[in-house]
Amino acid sequence: RIMRPDDANIAGNVHGGTILKMIEEAGAIISTRHCNSQAGESCVAALARVERTDFLSPMCIGEVANVSAEITYTSRHSVEVQVNVMSENILTGAKKLTNKATLWYVPLSLKNVNKVLEVPPIQYARKEQEDEGKKRYEEQKLDRLETKQRNGDVILPVINPEPHTVGYSQSSLIHLVGPSDCTLLGFVHGGVTMKLMDEVAGIVAARHCKTNIVTASVDAINFHEKIKKGCVITVSGRMTFTSNKSMEIEVFVDADPFVDEPRERYRAVSAFFTYVSLSKEGKPLPVPQLLTETEDEKRRFEEGKGRYLQTKAKRQAQMQQAAQ
Amino acid sequence: RIMRPDDANIAGNVHGGTILKMIEEAGAIISTRHCNSQAGESCVAALARVERTDFLSPMCIGEVANVSAEITYTSRHSVEVQVNVMSENILTGAKKLTNKATLWYVPLSLKNVNKVLEVPPIQYARKEQEDEGKKRYEEQKLDRLETKQRNGDVILPVINPEPHTVGYSQSSLIHLVGPSDCTLLGFVHGGVTMKLMDEVAGIVAARHCKTNIVTASVDAINFHEKIKKGCVITVSGRMTFTSNKSMEIEVFVDADPFVDEPRERYRAVSAFFTYVSLSKEGKPLPVPQLLTETEDEKRRFEEGKGRYLQTKAKRQAQMQQAAQ
Amino acid sequence: RIMRPDDANIAGNVHGGTILKMIEEAGAIISTRHCNSQAGESCVAALARVERTDFLSPMCIGEVANVSAEITYTSRHSVEVQVNVMSENILTGAKKLTNKATLWYVPLSLKNVNKVLEVPPIQYARKEQEDEGKKRYEEQKLDRLETKQRNGDVILPVINPEPHTVGYSQSSLIHLVGPSDCTLLGFVHGGVTMKLMDEVAGIVAARHCKTNIVTASVDAINFHEKIKKGCVITVSGRMTFTSNKSMEIEVFVDADPFVDEPRERYRAVSAFFTYVSLSKEGKPLPVPQLLTETEDEKRRFEEGKGRYLQTKAKRQAQMQQAAQ
Repeated sequence: RIMRPDDANIAGNVHGGTILKMIEEAGAIISTRHCNSQAGESCVAALARVERTDFLSPMCIGEVANVSAEITYTSRHSVEVQVNVMSENILTGAKKLTNKATLWYVPLSLKNVNKVLEVPPIQYARKEQEDEGKKRYEEQKLDRLETKQRNGDVILPVINPEPHTVGYSQSSLIHLVGPSDCTLLGFVHGGVTMKLMDEVAGIVAARHCKTNIVTASVDAINFHEKIKKGCVITVSGRMTFTSNKSMEIEVFVDADPFVDEPRERYRAVSAFFTYVSLSKEGKPLPVPQLLTETEDEKRRFEEGKGRYLQTKAKRQAQMQQAAQ
Repeated sequence: RIMRPDDANIAGNVHGGTILKMIEEAGAIISTRHCNSQAGESCVAALARVERTDFLSPMCIGEVANVSAEITYTSRHSVEVQVNVMSENILTGAKKLTNKATLWYVPLSLKNVNKVLEVPPIQYARKEQEDEGKKRYEEQKLDRLETKQRNGDVILPVINPEPHTVGYSQSSLIHLVGPSDCTLLGFVHGGVTMKLMDEVAGIVAARHCKTNIVTASVDAINFHEKIKKGCVITVSGRMTFTSNKSMEIEVFVDADPFVDEPRERYRAVSAFFTYVSLSKEGKPLPVPQLLTETEDEKRRFEEGKGRYLQTKAKRQAQMQQAAQ
Repeated sequence: RIMRPDDANIAGNVHGGTILKMIEEAGAIISTRHCNSQAGESCVAALARVERTDFLSPMCIGEVANVSAEITYTSRHSVEVQVNVMSENILTGAKKLTNKATLWYVPLSLKNVNKVLEVPPIQYARKEQEDEGKKRYEEQKLDRLETKQRNGDVILPVINPEPHTVGYSQSSLIHLVGPSDCTLLGFVHGGVTMKLMDEVAGIVAARHCKTNIVTASVDAINFHEKIKKGCVITVSGRMTFTSNKSMEIEVFVDADPFVDEPRERYRAVSAFFTYVSLSKEGKPLPVPQLLTETEDEKRRFEEGKGRYLQTKAKRQAQMQQAAQ
């Protein structure tokens, strides 16, 4: 589809959240189709996890987004989908790879939303494909267990914060879940949640550096808990780390099922977004350093630095591999 | 993409206007891409005409719309695009052809919106394809000239109208053209206009028969005049004819460029929409007869009857041909 | 236009904010058209004030909203517009008056947004109409001056609040102003701001009473400061008063022009919204009493009580007058 002014910031760069939403919609369609391809109970595929996603080049208003999706692995109860997004300038014909994302879906019964159904197995062209898929499956399973544990954190408000501190740029929004945000089962589409998360993370980044910013990458996101129609969701973001030219923002999604349900507010999703600041010519700009004040802020900064260095090392290893 | 509650009426049937908008977006992308495929001035393809379109089967919330487009003819200054829409139930795997539409686009220079550029010719697999395309091209050209003349009509309000008269169901809406309604050239997308026209026609139909209604077909629509960002558009509809099970509604679009331009309000588009009324089981229901009062209303009723009988005769001829 | 699922809450009642947005759009169109009706500099009418608006009856999904607007007074630099909203059930034909609103607009030059142009005078049918209009004009002018002074207040966050306290239900959201939120001059439509204000107020009300709630009325709103494209706006709401069956919520809108402008965050708008809680049958329900803790909260509660009693007295006077 053609990118509109509403999909972009005032510099004309399409929001990362718009792209994440398109990716998730493509993934939900292909995996729901696959899981219903055999006779048996009908189901809807629900997003369980998105692997780390890099935004390789910015997309602009007026360009056409081409989204293609393929199922690359199936376990007994989950489907791995690979989605590629190409941006196409239909005036010049130029095409660029914008995103490569890997998503995991789980089929939930239409009759009983708490029942996970079995996934019809796919055929692999080569035995190694299955083995590699299985390895990826085991890795993400482990990672999901880990993140389930570090979910208690809350973003506390700060009165009269200094510029460039954590409290200065932290932001949150509330959103009442409407019918168009939801699947047939009445639960929020993962893509809708990710779009709101990117919106908050982008505002945190812009408040910190006061320039034009774009999403550079999103760390793996796990969707532990479903969010129901009629909930109010609170999406909060705080900066955790800055390198010379990038900012890492942690985003929480909390759901408040306050109408006709006795349940407490709960943490539904959390993730790390990385943003860069761009000049008018599209070059990355230096970013003001984050000022950490409390012990917790300093600890989170060090953890963010660890993630940053790890990613950098991985990328260099890949480039060396590619050069050989 | 997946059909959402907002794309549909309260009975769950997707609005014809939503489908027309998707069709036009696909047509605009493929024809803009084609017209820029040769070196030369950049351009944007603008919708000039949509041929008569039938809605073969209703689409529902939760189904996926698959839209495919193909260029089927090029004249020196215009492109004919054929768009097919399939509705796919991803739970059952069932697919149905929903629409087959033919659209004509004209490439306008990005630098000078009043300059029509030349279209790169396409290759035809067989000589007959080119000849048939040329015939369709000549036919639509003639038809566009004709409609250009009957555009002076205005819908006047009626005080205390009786049920089932023309005045009783006639309706209009105004819309302020915003940035997301527009192409790169700052003119309203044809698809946006068609969606508003379908909305008004649907309200006219529902007011007349007070049941669940769906778009059955749209007569050829000619886009004589562009509509610019910042205009206010008035979309008005009145019923012109009823058969036993269908209603014909005439819709006008008038543009009011009241800011920063000295121009008068002008008629931008007009078209005939046909609606049917559906029972809860999806069966067509009888429709109350339209009560005509003035001479003009009687004349328009007869003209509508003429179009209805002509379409019916054409369809029977096609069915006989198919049966042979 | 037809009310869609996204225009309403999960009980099917259309959000007050959706209606306020339609009202403002109609007012902006009619007043911009009027102010450009004479030769001279082009302009866009900007919303300066909305008088107190009552929501007389709820509107539902599937109903058609009929909005009509009329210019009722012009001063040298401002236009008074009266807007009526009728809800029409197109299946039964039943029509109900939903809202009667009065709005004030000011024409701003398209070339220089800080220049207020002169308004072409309208003709009055009777001299008394002009005199009454002038009286309304003077009254609102006075009121605008007053509210300009009480704007310093800030909503501070509360840690671990008790149910039914002010801190428990207070809420805020952030919104990045996009192109579709703005007029031709690049400033946020008043209607967009009112819709966000109603969204926050509704969430505050729902958090307090945990039932289905609808907007009952909005006090006069003054738009002192324009909000520019690219700003982040923070909309915050807190409950100030509860009667047996109604809740009053104060809403602030602050604008943060953080990209490419040196300006500080400023208060753009503030207003009081009144909500009622409805049972499944549409009857008003009792509301839990607001627990006030600080001196400021107690003072605001008393002020809210004053407004409540004043409105009640006015309504009784009107009913007695109508009965005579």
